[in-house]
Amino acid sequence: MKAIKDMIRTVPDFPKKGIQFRDITTLLSDPDGLRLTIDTFCERYKDRGIEAVVGIEARGFILGSAVAYKLGVGFVPVRKKGKLPGNVERFEYDLEYGTDTVEIHSDALHKGTKVLLIDDLLATGGTCLAAAQLVEKVGGVVEEIAFIVDLPDLKGRDRLLKRGYRIFALCKFEGD
Amino acid sequence: MKAIKDMIRTVPDFPKKGIQFRDITTLLSDPDGLRLTIDTFCERYKDRGIEAVVGIEARGFILGSAVAYKLGVGFVPVRKKGKLPGNVERFEYDLEYGTDTVEIHSDALHKGTKVLLIDDLLATGGTCLAAAQLVEKVGGVVEEIAFIVDLPDLKGRDRLLKRGYRIFALCKFEGD
Repeated sequence: MKAIKDMIRTVPDFPKKGIQFRDITTLLSDPDGLRLTIDTFCERYKDRGIEAVVGIEARGFILGSAVAYKLGVGFVPVRKKGKLPGNVERFEYDLEYGTDTVEIHSDALHKGTKVLLIDDLLATGGTCLAAAQLVEKVGGVVEEIAFIVDLPDLKGRDRLLKRGYRIFALCKFEGD
Repeated sequence: MKAIKDMIRTVPDFPKKGIQFRDITTLLSDPDGLRLTIDTFCERYKDRGIEAVVGIEARGFILGSAVAYKLGVGFVPVRKKGKLPGNVERFEYDLEYGTDTVEIHSDALHKGTKVLLIDDLLATGGTCLAAAQLVEKVGGVVEEIAFIVDLPDLKGRDRLLKRGYRIFALCKFEGD
């Protein structure tokens, strides 16, 4: 069977010129790729006392729910502003140009819930750091943050580690 | 254990006054709710020869990947315009005010692939009908369209049935 990294397609110049976009849809549309991805995460986390999986919109939803299902815990979404209907906590963070905001339901986690936070790709880490802080704001404890792809050149890894978060990625792409 | 319908929270006046929003996050954040939801879908589809699950952004991602994983098939996303990096087919459809567009990767499905299309909620059926037509445009065959919630008052059910699609929902809310 192919390795996870080999099932990820690279699309040049998306969403803009000069960006090598790492496209996980080719990994996930392959039955072996989807199975290997979810099983690798679950193998790592099955004995870590994870009590909830939090996935970041939108590709984090694809991974998070299947991992939550297999671990036998619930799934909680972190969404873009205005999408969650209940009372929310929100976190605004800086982008290259402007800002973005993510939200979580205020009552989504019991106090002290051990959370696995999951997203598809770690680049600068901005969204992910915002999501981790949201989890904590509603009482959760981030056990680890998991990704399919790490792009260490973009320094998200360093940024999250410096804040004390443990991180894990299935593969990395460097030196583009 | 509570029934699926009882684990769905209703948020009045979201996203606008007069709408009773059916919030599935309370169902999916409950370990029993998530398990029951995914298991009920998989029990129904395990012997139907499903070869791929297509989920509609964003809540359809949460359901689709876990069902695909458990059925042992791949997961394919239908996304809002501009989010998929590869070559896409797109479908523009009418909303109450204006239009919206959904896309699928042109190479996402082999010709004749038997597809389970999945989303969280059936209202007017516009997005879902667009997604079903996209699946067909790239060579797939829609075996059935599955939802957690059906709102039959909004006529999406009738609209999809009239077009010859089979549909299935875990619960319905009527007469609000």
